[in-house]
Amino acid sequence: MPRNAFYAQSGGVTAVINASAAGVIETARKYEDRIGKVYAGRNGILGALTEDLIDTSQESPAAIAALRHTPAGAFGSCRYKLKGFEDNQAEYERLIEVFKAHDIGYFFYNGGGDSADTCLKVSQLAGKLGYPLQAIHVPKTMDNDLPLTDCCPGFGSVAKYTAVSIREASFDLASMAKTSTRVFILEVMGRHAGWTAAAGGLAAEKEGEGPQVILFPEIVFDEAKFLAKVDDCVRRYGWCTVVASEGLRAASGEFLSETGSKDAFGHSQLGGLAPILAQLVKDKLKLKYHYAVADYLMRAARHIASKTDLEQSYAVGKAAVEFAIAGKSGVMVSIVRKSDSPYVWEIGEAPLEQVANVERKMPREYITDDGFHITEACRAYLSPLIQGEDYPPYRNGLPAYVTLRNVPVPKKLKPFELKK
Amino acid sequence: MPRNAFYAQSGGVTAVINASAAGVIETARKYEDRIGKVYAGRNGILGALTEDLIDTSQESPAAIAALRHTPAGAFGSCRYKLKGFEDNQAEYERLIEVFKAHDIGYFFYNGGGDSADTCLKVSQLAGKLGYPLQAIHVPKTMDNDLPLTDCCPGFGSVAKYTAVSIREASFDLASMAKTSTRVFILEVMGRHAGWTAAAGGLAAEKEGEGPQVILFPEIVFDEAKFLAKVDDCVRRYGWCTVVASEGLRAASGEFLSETGSKDAFGHSQLGGLAPILAQLVKDKLKLKYHYAVADYLMRAARHIASKTDLEQSYAVGKAAVEFAIAGKSGVMVSIVRKSDSPYVWEIGEAPLEQVANVERKMPREYITDDGFHITEACRAYLSPLIQGEDYPPYRNGLPAYVTLRNVPVPKKLKPFELKK
Repeated sequence: MPRNAFYAQSGGVTAVINASAAGVIETARKYEDRIGKVYAGRNGILGALTEDLIDTSQESPAAIAALRHTPAGAFGSCRYKLKGFEDNQAEYERLIEVFKAHDIGYFFYNGGGDSADTCLKVSQLAGKLGYPLQAIHVPKTMDNDLPLTDCCPGFGSVAKYTAVSIREASFDLASMAKTSTRVFILEVMGRHAGWTAAAGGLAAEKEGEGPQVILFPEIVFDEAKFLAKVDDCVRRYGWCTVVASEGLRAASGEFLSETGSKDAFGHSQLGGLAPILAQLVKDKLKLKYHYAVADYLMRAARHIASKTDLEQSYAVGKAAVEFAIAGKSGVMVSIVRKSDSPYVWEIGEAPLEQVANVERKMPREYITDDGFHITEACRAYLSPLIQGEDYPPYRNGLPAYVTLRNVPVPKKLKPFELKK
Repeated sequence: MPRNAFYAQSGGVTAVINASAAGVIETARKYEDRIGKVYAGRNGILGALTEDLIDTSQESPAAIAALRHTPAGAFGSCRYKLKGFEDNQAEYERLIEVFKAHDIGYFFYNGGGDSADTCLKVSQLAGKLGYPLQAIHVPKTMDNDLPLTDCCPGFGSVAKYTAVSIREASFDLASMAKTSTRVFILEVMGRHAGWTAAAGGLAAEKEGEGPQVILFPEIVFDEAKFLAKVDDCVRRYGWCTVVASEGLRAASGEFLSETGSKDAFGHSQLGGLAPILAQLVKDKLKLKYHYAVADYLMRAARHIASKTDLEQSYAVGKAAVEFAIAGKSGVMVSIVRKSDSPYVWEIGEAPLEQVANVERKMPREYITDDGFHITEACRAYLSPLIQGEDYPPYRNGLPAYVTLRNVPVPKKLKPFELKK
């Protein structure tokens, strides 16, 4: 008798996480002798805790196929981290209770580092309670900070967006610099690792092309060196474009964006870096500036997704189901690079114990000695990830993204009170 | 004996202004019996004043054709407004002197309202001095605020970028809203007219789709009404996306956000609106927010240009040359709408006297009664302008934009001292 599968999307969404969902669902549909229905958690793991399940079998093949070209999380995601067993055993037990009630034998969890940790714990608890469950982690994070995989699905598209955008802005700035704006700053998401900022560096293929300056969270911000670098660029080329990671830190260890802007409650919110840098440029160098803050636009930009990233995102979803069919559990699907050029990759696997709560930062050798750009080694690593375009279909001049019906599965259990 | 042509790009550049350049140059090359060389001004009209001319005949047909898919100003633009005759007759006389020295009989000026004014004055002075010159204005402005034309080349692409971006961000936000961010604000350029913000409204095709709120410069900002509207959306849909024009004004008439710096035209530099709105949402509604500032990214985004806009941009460049060949002068090439659906347009002309220094704002009937969205009439006007995609070629995963050789024409005159 085939058992059902549970699939959920976790944490910040990406332009291609729905391609992983399509990979899971379409592949599961091919194994109907082994997998019954795929139930998706509405708003990620919350859907499992509250028994708010979506019956994906109610969606047409065309709708599931359209997930491949639709950004964000079609079933809803959440930022909700399960605590350790000791602190919150009730939640883990509830998950198993819901899985039991709906005969769920497969747990596919699509997320980043925190989710890998949850996936591992669920897998361990199921074992402890003697509940048969195969738990597979489907990697996803625009931050590209998961270990034991060549890259993280979602990152290649953010990387492409960043490189394309800063190239375009650099062309714009170069046109205007004679009489107007000289410095343009693009602030990008990426709290702890500089991968997304680094990707902007791909746009500078020749001497003098923008961006000339990249600010990484891995390199402590040095105001004097930054200003000297910008000043030198403007003297040399007439203009300077900067890609700055929101996670840029001052020597104190604080986020630079926090040093300037705290709200009435003393909380700081990231995303205020560009104006701080721009003000410095204006005050100290007396140069006219413009800045952009990419924020959600970059991670939602399915219209300029990387074809490589899209293919990998679909492939990890597909592989997760094949792993489960093959009897695996407690692993993350990974991407293994066989060569840089041509880029050859294949699907691999990594034990969740070695994935959970490990954050992969940029290696120092990927950053130039002066700390302001990427090295050739970094370029060789990043460049394959942005290759290829995969445009969504358009209707009325706009991308035709799908919204699913998201039909709920009838509940069988009593309501569950969430902690806090 | 064919006389030479002068072409210059003026003011803020767009994703498709180079398509107009391609239209001018490729068409001029077809009339070699009438037009000698096309000289481009390096950095716009400054190039004429300083006799810094670029010989476009040195560029290959392939390079000129590549302008069609390259954003920004290939010859450099400038923000430099010529004053009236009385204040600065020397500059106008210098232009004529340079034109005379290089046997320039055609003046093609590619810009917005200020440039139309310059084009008119140059045309008038040439007449007064008995210098034979045909002056044709080639319209361009992402602000869409020129009169007597259906739309302005450059706007359709900004409109498409804005609608695509806010649709994508809305999908992202809808995924996250259950446990995290509820409000997303996209700040767009557009100082006095709300056209670019309005275009975001095209993304909302059905009830509940984002953006649910648009803030126009034409509607005085009312904090209480804005917060009530956002609050209502969040209660109704769980989330709310907002497109806000940088030119939003307080009841006092001041821009809601002023940085204090002014550009060469005396306009103040904007760009700090989104954080102000976000802070309001956080303080008053206690909702988590994210915001993006599009800035140059929107007007440089050739990767998602509107095909309609691109075709019009090329067509106005081509028509400018044909107008000159037909003996016209002192006119702007315009776009005439024959029908909305299907969108049918043709080339027309408008006398520069009626174009210069007239700013076309959004008609009130294009904005809903509550002031927060666009009407069906506005949708019928805007929708045709974003139709179609025209992707640039890619190399190494990035758009293959062209950089011209920009070979200077040997100078014949003494240097000229610019005012101020």
